Amino acid sequence: MQGEIITTGTELISGRVADRNACYAAARLYDAGLEVQCITILGDLAPLFQETLRRGLTRSQFIIITGGLGPTDDDITVAAAAEILNIPLRLDESLLKRIRDCLKVRGLPWEERYARLAQIPEGALILDPGGAACGFSFKYQDTWLYFLPGVPQQMQMLFDAFVLPPLVQLSGGGECVCQRTLCLFGLTETQIETMLGNICKAHPEVSVGFYPNFPENHLSLTVRGPEPEVLKETLDRLTDEVAQVAGEALLGTDQDTLEELVGRRLRAQNLTLGVAESCSGGLISHRITNIPGASDYFRGGVVTYSNQAKVELLRVAEATLNQHGAVSAETVQAMALGVRELFHTPIGLAVTGIAGPGGGSPDKPVGTVYLGLALPQGVQTRHCRFHGTRSQIKTLTAQTALDWLRRELQDDSGLPSH
Amino acid sequence: MQGEIITTGTELISGRVADRNACYAAARLYDAGLEVQCITILGDLAPLFQETLRRGLTRSQFIIITGGLGPTDDDITVAAAAEILNIPLRLDESLLKRIRDCLKVRGLPWEERYARLAQIPEGALILDPGGAACGFSFKYQDTWLYFLPGVPQQMQMLFDAFVLPPLVQLSGGGECVCQRTLCLFGLTETQIETMLGNICKAHPEVSVGFYPNFPENHLSLTVRGPEPEVLKETLDRLTDEVAQVAGEALLGTDQDTLEELVGRRLRAQNLTLGVAESCSGGLISHRITNIPGASDYFRGGVVTYSNQAKVELLRVAEATLNQHGAVSAETVQAMALGVRELFHTPIGLAVTGIAGPGGGSPDKPVGTVYLGLALPQGVQTRHCRFHGTRSQIKTLTAQTALDWLRRELQDDSGLPSH
Repeated sequence: MQGEIITTGTELISGRVADRNACYAAARLYDAGLEVQCITILGDLAPLFQETLRRGLTRSQFIIITGGLGPTDDDITVAAAAEILNIPLRLDESLLKRIRDCLKVRGLPWEERYARLAQIPEGALILDPGGAACGFSFKYQDTWLYFLPGVPQQMQMLFDAFVLPPLVQLSGGGECVCQRTLCLFGLTETQIETMLGNICKAHPEVSVGFYPNFPENHLSLTVRGPEPEVLKETLDRLTDEVAQVAGEALLGTDQDTLEELVGRRLRAQNLTLGVAESCSGGLISHRITNIPGASDYFRGGVVTYSNQAKVELLRVAEATLNQHGAVSAETVQAMALGVRELFHTPIGLAVTGIAGPGGGSPDKPVGTVYLGLALPQGVQTRHCRFHGTRSQIKTLTAQTALDWLRRELQDDSGLPSH
Repeated sequence: MQGEIITTGTELISGRVADRNACYAAARLYDAGLEVQCITILGDLAPLFQETLRRGLTRSQFIIITGGLGPTDDDITVAAAAEILNIPLRLDESLLKRIRDCLKVRGLPWEERYARLAQIPEGALILDPGGAACGFSFKYQDTWLYFLPGVPQQMQMLFDAFVLPPLVQLSGGGECVCQRTLCLFGLTETQIETMLGNICKAHPEVSVGFYPNFPENHLSLTVRGPEPEVLKETLDRLTDEVAQVAGEALLGTDQDTLEELVGRRLRAQNLTLGVAESCSGGLISHRITNIPGASDYFRGGVVTYSNQAKVELLRVAEATLNQHGAVSAETVQAMALGVRELFHTPIGLAVTGIAGPGGGSPDKPVGTVYLGLALPQGVQTRHCRFHGTRSQIKTLTAQTALDWLRRELQDDSGLPSH
C-alpha cells in the first residue's frame, strides 16, 4: 500500500516554520510498517494543490492532507479538492452549532466566515475528537483521503485516533499492528546499539526503530498479527526484556514524561518536594509544574542566582561559598538541605553550575554542574560535566536532576514503576 | 520567477529525521524575495524522483535538489536526472583526484564506488567550496538546476555561496533585496490587519508578510532595488512607521527575544529584578536565565506553589490569602512587594493564577491570572483571562508579565529602545 502526504501553509513554504505534521505522520506510519512515498509541501494556491492531488490519486492508496481547514480566504484545500473531484460541499449543521458554541464560550462574536469551517464534502466522515478541531475523510475511487487541521497538536491527535488505525487495518488485510515507544535516558549509544542488536536477533518478527530525542533516546517496537491481545502481550514481554537490560534507564512508554514519572512516584509515596536552582534557572520547577496537579507534591522552588540569595534563603554558609565557590559539592549539599528546610518538605533537590557561554575556568569549565539531593535518609551530591550550548546545558542539568530523583524514588519492589 | 526544492533521503521520508535543507533554502530564498512554490520530499526511488523533476521543469525556473550525491547505490539523483534529461555523465578528473586525496588524508582505502562521486553531467558547473563536498549546477532549457549534498552543513554552505547569489541576481535583473522581521506582542488580530492594510496601501513597493508565532505575531517586510543603502533606509523608515502605530507592541526586529529586550533595558538602567511565580511555575525565571549574563540583573526567583510558601517567603498576610484567595490582586501585590524585599532588588515581578485544567471556579475560571509589578515608584496589579491548555496559559502568563515589565522600563525618550 502506497501513500503520500500533502501539507499546506505559506508559513511552511516560506521556510518560516519547519514542517512537523508530515514528519510526525511519516514516522508513525513507518513505525507501523506503512511507508509514504512522497511528502509535498505547498503554499495556499489552489491550482498547484489540485495538480499535486491529481498526481497523488494516480499513485497512492491514501493521501493525508494537512492545513487549509481554517476560516480565511487562504484556506483552500477543501474547496479545491471538492472542485477537481466533482464532489459538492454541504453545510454540516451539527458542526456549525459546535463552532457557534465554541465562539460563545470564548466570548468571540460570530462572523460569517466561520460558516466555512462547517462546509465538508458530501458523504465525508467527520473525524471528531470531541471539542477540538475536526477533520474528515472519504474514499475517492481507490484512494482514501484524510483532511486534517494544520495546527500540529490538533493534527497529531486526529492522526493517532482516526487515520493510523484504519490505515494499518487496510494495509494488513485485516491484520493488526501494535506499536510502542520506549523512552530511555542515561545509556551510552554503544549500550543502546548492543541492546538493539540483541533484540533484533532474538525477535526477527519485531521492527525496531531508534530515535535520538534530545536529551532522551526513543526506541520504537512494532509487531503485526491477527490478534491484538497477542500483540499486546508480545510488546509487554519485549518491554520487560528491555527493562531487564536497561534497568532504571528505561523511563517509560509512549507519552510518559520524566516529570510525570517523578510526580507519580512522589504522589504514590506521599512525599513532597522543594527545588533550589542556580544554573538551570527555573527549568526544573517549570517542568515539574507542567504536570496538572503538581501542587499535590511540589511545594515550591527558588532560583538563587546570586550568592546572597543562596546565603539568605538557603542558609548556605558564607564560609562554604568563599572556600569552595558557588559551583561545588559543598555548596549544592547546603542548598539541598536548605531548600528542604525552606519548604518544610522531606525532599530537597538542588543544582548549581556553569551554563555558559561565559563564567568557565580551567578548574571549572562551562558545563560543570553539581547536583544535590536531600532525602529523609540523608543527603548526596553528584558532579557532572555537560557539553553543548547554554540551552542544552540547562536542559541536561534539569533532565539529570529529575532523573536522579526518579531513580531514588524507586518502588520497594525494586522494579521500575511505569 | 518560480522555483521549487526536491529533497531526497529515506531518513526524511520515514520521518526519522525532520527536513532541514528545504526549510533552510526556502527561508533564505523567501527573505531574498524569491518564493518557492513547492517542496517535495522523496525517498531513493528513481522513477518518482524523475516524475517530480519532469513536473518541476514544466513549472519552475529553478529547482534545488538535495541529497543523493553520495557513493552508495541509494544515491540516485545524478544518474536519474541525467537519464531523463538525456545528458551524458562524464568523469571529472580533477574531482576524482580530490576524492583520492581526501581519502588519503583520512587514512581510508580507495574503493571503486567512490568514482561515482566524480560523475557529473556534461557541461555542469562544479560548485566547489574548497575541500568539502561539492555540488553542481546547469541550465536545462529554461530551468536552472542545482544539485547539493544532503548533509545540512555542507548543503547550507554551498547554498549560501553558489545558489542564492546567482538566483537573486537572475530574479532581480541585478537588483538587491532587503528583508526585516518585526516582532509584535499585545495587539489584537484586527489591529494588526488594519495596520497591515495601511502599510500595503501606502507602500505598494513593499512585500508584507504576517505570521502568528505563538504567543507573538511576526511581520516581515521585503524591499527590492538597485542600491542596498536605499533599501536599508526604506526598511528603517517602515520600521519607524510601524513603531508609530504599534507603539510598545513592537518588541523588536529579527532575532530579538522578549527576555533579551527586558535584560537590555534592566542593564541599561542599572536595575535588578526578583521574580515570584505561582501558576507560571518557574517559566519566567527560566526565560530570563536563557540570556547569557542574566546574573548581572537577575537576582533570583521563587516558585511559591503553596500558600505556606507565599506567607513564609514573601510575607503575604494570611488574612489576605483567607479573605481574597491565592489568586487575587491583593495577593499578587503582596507577592511583588515580598519578592522585592526577599532579593533586595528595586523591582519585584509576581504572578498568580489558575493554569488548569483543574482548579477553576465560576468566579475564577481556568486562565484567570493576576500580575503584580513593584517598581521604585510604586506597585501595580493587572488582571488577565487567558484561554488554552495548561502549557499555553503558562506561556501567556510568562509572556504578558515579561512584556509588562519591558513596557514599564521604557526609555526616558518615550521611544521604544530596540
